[in-house]
Amino acid sequence: MSDPTVADLVDRVRDGDVRLHELDAHVDAETAATVRRRAVAEQSGSDVDAFGEYAFDAADADPNIDNMIGAVQIPIGVAGPVSVDGGAFAGDRYLPMATTEGALVASVNRGCSVIDAAGGSTARVTKSGMTRAPVFRVDDVAEAEALASWVRDNVPTLREAAESTTSHGELLAVTPYAVGNNVYLRFRYDTKDAMGMNMVTIATREACDVVEAETDASLVALSGNLCSDKKPAAVNAVEGRGRSVAADVEIPREVVEDRLHTTPEAIAEINTRKNHVGSAKAGSLGFNAHVANTVAAMFLATGQDEAQVVEGANAITTAEVTPDGDLYVSVSLASLEVGTVGGGTKLPTQAAALDVLGVRGGGDPAGSNADALAEAIAVGALAGELSLLAALGSRNLASAHEELGR
Amino acid sequence: MSDPTVADLVDRVRDGDVRLHELDAHVDAETAATVRRRAVAEQSGSDVDAFGEYAFDAADADPNIDNMIGAVQIPIGVAGPVSVDGGAFAGDRYLPMATTEGALVASVNRGCSVIDAAGGSTARVTKSGMTRAPVFRVDDVAEAEALASWVRDNVPTLREAAESTTSHGELLAVTPYAVGNNVYLRFRYDTKDAMGMNMVTIATREACDVVEAETDASLVALSGNLCSDKKPAAVNAVEGRGRSVAADVEIPREVVEDRLHTTPEAIAEINTRKNHVGSAKAGSLGFNAHVANTVAAMFLATGQDEAQVVEGANAITTAEVTPDGDLYVSVSLASLEVGTVGGGTKLPTQAAALDVLGVRGGGDPAGSNADALAEAIAVGALAGELSLLAALGSRNLASAHEELGR
Amino acid sequence: MSDPTVADLVDRVRDGDVRLHELDAHVDAETAATVRRRAVAEQSGSDVDAFGEYAFDAADADPNIDNMIGAVQIPIGVAGPVSVDGGAFAGDRYLPMATTEGALVASVNRGCSVIDAAGGSTARVTKSGMTRAPVFRVDDVAEAEALASWVRDNVPTLREAAESTTSHGELLAVTPYAVGNNVYLRFRYDTKDAMGMNMVTIATREACDVVEAETDASLVALSGNLCSDKKPAAVNAVEGRGRSVAADVEIPREVVEDRLHTTPEAIAEINTRKNHVGSAKAGSLGFNAHVANTVAAMFLATGQDEAQVVEGANAITTAEVTPDGDLYVSVSLASLEVGTVGGGTKLPTQAAALDVLGVRGGGDPAGSNADALAEAIAVGALAGELSLLAALGSRNLASAHEELGR
Amino acid sequence: MSDPTVADLVDRVRDGDVRLHELDAHVDAETAATVRRRAVAEQSGSDVDAFGEYAFDAADADPNIDNMIGAVQIPIGVAGPVSVDGGAFAGDRYLPMATTEGALVASVNRGCSVIDAAGGSTARVTKSGMTRAPVFRVDDVAEAEALASWVRDNVPTLREAAESTTSHGELLAVTPYAVGNNVYLRFRYDTKDAMGMNMVTIATREACDVVEAETDASLVALSGNLCSDKKPAAVNAVEGRGRSVAADVEIPREVVEDRLHTTPEAIAEINTRKNHVGSAKAGSLGFNAHVANTVAAMFLATGQDEAQVVEGANAITTAEVTPDGDLYVSVSLASLEVGTVGGGTKLPTQAAALDVLGVRGGGDPAGSNADALAEAIAVGALAGELSLLAALGSRNLASAHEELGR
Repeated sequence: MSDPTVADLVDRVRDGDVRLHELDAHVDAETAATVRRRAVAEQSGSDVDAFGEYAFDAADADPNIDNMIGAVQIPIGVAGPVSVDGGAFAGDRYLPMATTEGALVASVNRGCSVIDAAGGSTARVTKSGMTRAPVFRVDDVAEAEALASWVRDNVPTLREAAESTTSHGELLAVTPYAVGNNVYLRFRYDTKDAMGMNMVTIATREACDVVEAETDASLVALSGNLCSDKKPAAVNAVEGRGRSVAADVEIPREVVEDRLHTTPEAIAEINTRKNHVGSAKAGSLGFNAHVANTVAAMFLATGQDEAQVVEGANAITTAEVTPDGDLYVSVSLASLEVGTVGGGTKLPTQAAALDVLGVRGGGDPAGSNADALAEAIAVGALAGELSLLAALGSRNLASAHEELGR
Repeated sequence: MSDPTVADLVDRVRDGDVRLHELDAHVDAETAATVRRRAVAEQSGSDVDAFGEYAFDAADADPNIDNMIGAVQIPIGVAGPVSVDGGAFAGDRYLPMATTEGALVASVNRGCSVIDAAGGSTARVTKSGMTRAPVFRVDDVAEAEALASWVRDNVPTLREAAESTTSHGELLAVTPYAVGNNVYLRFRYDTKDAMGMNMVTIATREACDVVEAETDASLVALSGNLCSDKKPAAVNAVEGRGRSVAADVEIPREVVEDRLHTTPEAIAEINTRKNHVGSAKAGSLGFNAHVANTVAAMFLATGQDEAQVVEGANAITTAEVTPDGDLYVSVSLASLEVGTVGGGTKLPTQAAALDVLGVRGGGDPAGSNADALAEAIAVGALAGELSLLAALGSRNLASAHEELGR
Repeated sequence: MSDPTVADLVDRVRDGDVRLHELDAHVDAETAATVRRRAVAEQSGSDVDAFGEYAFDAADADPNIDNMIGAVQIPIGVAGPVSVDGGAFAGDRYLPMATTEGALVASVNRGCSVIDAAGGSTARVTKSGMTRAPVFRVDDVAEAEALASWVRDNVPTLREAAESTTSHGELLAVTPYAVGNNVYLRFRYDTKDAMGMNMVTIATREACDVVEAETDASLVALSGNLCSDKKPAAVNAVEGRGRSVAADVEIPREVVEDRLHTTPEAIAEINTRKNHVGSAKAGSLGFNAHVANTVAAMFLATGQDEAQVVEGANAITTAEVTPDGDLYVSVSLASLEVGTVGGGTKLPTQAAALDVLGVRGGGDPAGSNADALAEAIAVGALAGELSLLAALGSRNLASAHEELGR
Repeated sequence: MSDPTVADLVDRVRDGDVRLHELDAHVDAETAATVRRRAVAEQSGSDVDAFGEYAFDAADADPNIDNMIGAVQIPIGVAGPVSVDGGAFAGDRYLPMATTEGALVASVNRGCSVIDAAGGSTARVTKSGMTRAPVFRVDDVAEAEALASWVRDNVPTLREAAESTTSHGELLAVTPYAVGNNVYLRFRYDTKDAMGMNMVTIATREACDVVEAETDASLVALSGNLCSDKKPAAVNAVEGRGRSVAADVEIPREVVEDRLHTTPEAIAEINTRKNHVGSAKAGSLGFNAHVANTVAAMFLATGQDEAQVVEGANAITTAEVTPDGDLYVSVSLASLEVGTVGGGTKLPTQAAALDVLGVRGGGDPAGSNADALAEAIAVGALAGELSLLAALGSRNLASAHEELGR
């Protein structure tokens, strides 16, 4: 591929003869990215060469990006290794975290160290299922009631239609919600090791065709926001979405005192006044200190959908002094949407991060890798909670940031 | 730097003689990353060379990452250019978006194209201020009331203390909230072009010292979750945090019909049944279709804090048919926390993305670049909403994903 | 009963020899009330004779009140009659409403009149079930997951235990929710014509005994707030509690214009900007204008639990212009907890109000009277919404209050 | 008044010649009520004489009811007396409670007894102000920003207009909230001893006229639901409405053990697992056990607006073991809307209940009676929380109901 071609295409883009997304029809993916990069540089009068220093095959990123101009590089670090007794995840593993927030990996790392000193963390997926909730319009509330009844009676039919579109997914339930002349059907699926949004969207569309064929209802939108994807919503916080996963640890008092420079009582008190009462007063769906930090960093590292950090923040942290005077801490994430196949998981760095955790690709049994990833993130979140609560307990939050010059 | 040194350090890490974060004291940042990468590879039995293909100076990433092993590469594409009439952001700009979700950039791009065909989008920051809310313990509710009163009377004193720690930040307000023997003081600052979390944490700590010196209250935690950072919380959705920013567009009916293959009435209806009624039924703080997608992708591109996508999703989309039969669509993000200085904004690719938008570094006047970034993201979100609502209107959501093989 | 006895007992109460609740052991219920009334009058230095003018047998109120001193009198009026096509409620009925808020009954009455002019309202119960959710403590998250699994596998056993305590109630479902070392089991029952809180509390206690006997879990509280009773909670707004009930009406444009002095378009717009967007911005679980007014007034009239007005307010109002230019309005109450037997329903005035609606006592089939009551309240709420939206549409809210001198 | 007149009017009502609300023009209030009662009896085929046994002058109820047919009688009891150290309420008072829920008054009474044994409760109003939030439509987001700015600059002008309508009310603040082309202005007033909804509605209407005259904004609705009246809304839970009021008590361990048959530790644990974690999981705005019960019963007794029980339930209960091993319990009600003048407060039984509390009519200084009423209700709620938590602690919730045959 000669530069002249690139220059010519940049000209044609500038002149409006070729649109950015049409470039793929003219040249290979890498050249197309180069042309776009130059066109963007020219239009904005800026140097964007940095985007060009990517280390994957541009064609391989096709399922992940449109109008590609290259890649953004996000620093990645590791916390741990940390010892986990999970339902699917077990052993000692480093936790890969991609972030630009200084002190975050260090904080989680400190938590991992304390968890290990306490004998490791326990983790479990307590509920599972990816959802999609189309909205239908009916004539009136009588029809809404009738449709809800019809759906309750016809789940097998809907399942057959939905599952006809997928070799992996299983329809677990369909729950109707009626509001006036709207009926929302919340379909819940087992999507195995896939995060599953696309799988369930396609399957649900097929089921919607059946609803429209068999009833008088009209589909308004394949997603009616009761799913609820990428919005902070109580339905996810209460009912779960993706994996509901929890991790906990019991830490001997002396470990709390020696390693965290505070007491079980102080941590329990801070957790109550901050994570429970403060969040209550804030009208929050997140009763935790900074779970989203760990979720976001591990999502980025492992190729998850970064916008789903939103529902990943639906987490509750508890802390209590045990009868023996030790510290029990848990974190429960209601709606952690993760996958180890599909989405961004095949890109080289993301695949490597999944390898670090030992959870790349389809699990055996199916779904166990995604379960394990969920548990790993929960343990990372637990470590982060523990570390931040302890930092608050020993009053050095601002100091820590200050010393690091951040 | 010779490999032998690396190999030796990997051995020492494995043997527990050197901890990962101690490597920086032994070798330069890049070598330290190499050692960690090998140690992680060895421990996990996987190939993690991909992390090593980063294109920035490892030492420069020091403020952004701990225990660095390299970088994750996220594909970046552009939507637009789109024409914006903003309070701070004006002109035609490409919107850089880093994501692994196929079809997302294409969707926003389609929205940008329609916005341009309609004459461009209007955008405004309607409220501004970064918050930090420490929690204090007092004796009882009488003391709580007394502390709230004292604070209301002593804002100037608190301001002096807080602002002594910063050359840029200005304390705008301190609002007390009492719950039993807890008092939360929500400090709100103008942090100019910085996202400002660290600035306000340090400033608030200084103000807390004054509160403790002048009253009987005891600081429990520098953040009491009424801030509320990285949690889905009504206090942010109602009162705002960072920038409250909105964008809108009025689209002639023929543009809706020709370019989006649907009608203003269909889009308004879908918006009502999905974004309003569906989200209402879901107990949501997000009355939109997929604002978080754009927020997340533009956050990643421009070096923002990826965990703050959580409150970025606190957005309301409205759509209505105008008296003339055209389509009015708006999106209002209550709590978009952005900065154009500090954090991840100095990394090469992130800085380049800010350059593409023309908002890198401190603005003139101070704060105008961060305002402009917020407006750019709002317009991107608007484009995304428009495109997805139209896709639902023309019934091709699942088809689109299917065709793209995603 | 001689006054001397009363006087003597008043003296003994004052001296602390007899406590108020011990009076029932000394004298009949009416005399006990008289003694208390005098004791209260004396202690507070006020005239409280008004409480004594009650018209029921004091002994009959024993299941409803402790330390009775008499009765409060709340004015009652009627709206309607209104024509309803319900699943259980049908025909034309007056709606009894007890309130002290002037203009409320008039407002609902106007709405009823318009509904009748439009041919009546349709109403349906779309979901039903009273809930109680005890909280158990377990060792850790592994035990929490195990308990959740155990419960899912042992619903028949729990049902047997629960239903052994009641001749009417049926256990419909048990849903486990895990948070750290807490497991909440949300039991949902069909309680027929009873509101059912006490029935389900007793039944659930029995089931809890089984859980404790068969597992290592310890019951912490018979109500763990996931029920959720008398709190504004998303779990009720989303999943329902008591009856989920909706009512709607389609009103010809000319009726809107002639009777409500506004247009379908104006009402739809107000509903969107106020009930949808305004409530969205408010972080609300109530997307309506004043449904609680009707719920409260009909609850008081018919002997319902006045504190359950809280979840009665979880309602969504929709309004749209039909393709023919008419007005469609609906109201959907997610969690209306009503009964026609038990509680306050046997008191004379309350029983009379149920008679006015034709729903007193057990229905045939069982549950149909409570369904009908729920539908009647939904229609009343619809009438109230319609009237207030219209008043806002014709800009006379404040005027109305002002003219009435209220 | 002769029966023949009544009979004749009943005929005319039946025939549609006279409508219920027109009767006041023909006969006196009492006769009108009689006619309506008979008409309702006839239409429903039921005996409704019970409504006729009211003991107030029908004409006096005119500001409170429309289409009056009589009164509902709700049993009233008293708890206490309880000793309170309030900001406005002080001394020992009985708490009047009107309810049909057996065991409720007994429960609060037990709590009062324990509070007294502990030396009494402290109570304080921590914030005050009644709100009304009209919604305006503007052209676009630029206009929305401009209107918000205009309002921030013109509060004195709005105050002048608003206060011109009232001799008592004072405008405290106006806060703008922008969503697309909607601007909500939340007006907050000091309404002294009045609950104040009507006062602030009238005052705000006047201010809205100014907004419309001085800007291009159009008033859509005098209430835009950001007020937020009679809906469960975070804006009230966070920012308060009416009175934000709290009460607390520190109870010696031996009192907890002897009187409540449980321990401080057990109560603190139940409070955490139920009121904090359970409510968190439920997506609740109410972090308490049954505050609404006390609010509802004292609202009914004292003539408050029963529909405002909704926001009265926005309460947080805290419980902790003090360093000395005693029990500290508090309850904080964010949005308790009460008045001692206007509304239902003049009716004989309601006025008597206010007299029992010593808070009838306007206070000196103005507002102090309503403050005192709020504090009294908070103490009642505290007593109820304490009693129920203790009952759960000693495992007798269901037993209590069962023994009482309820």
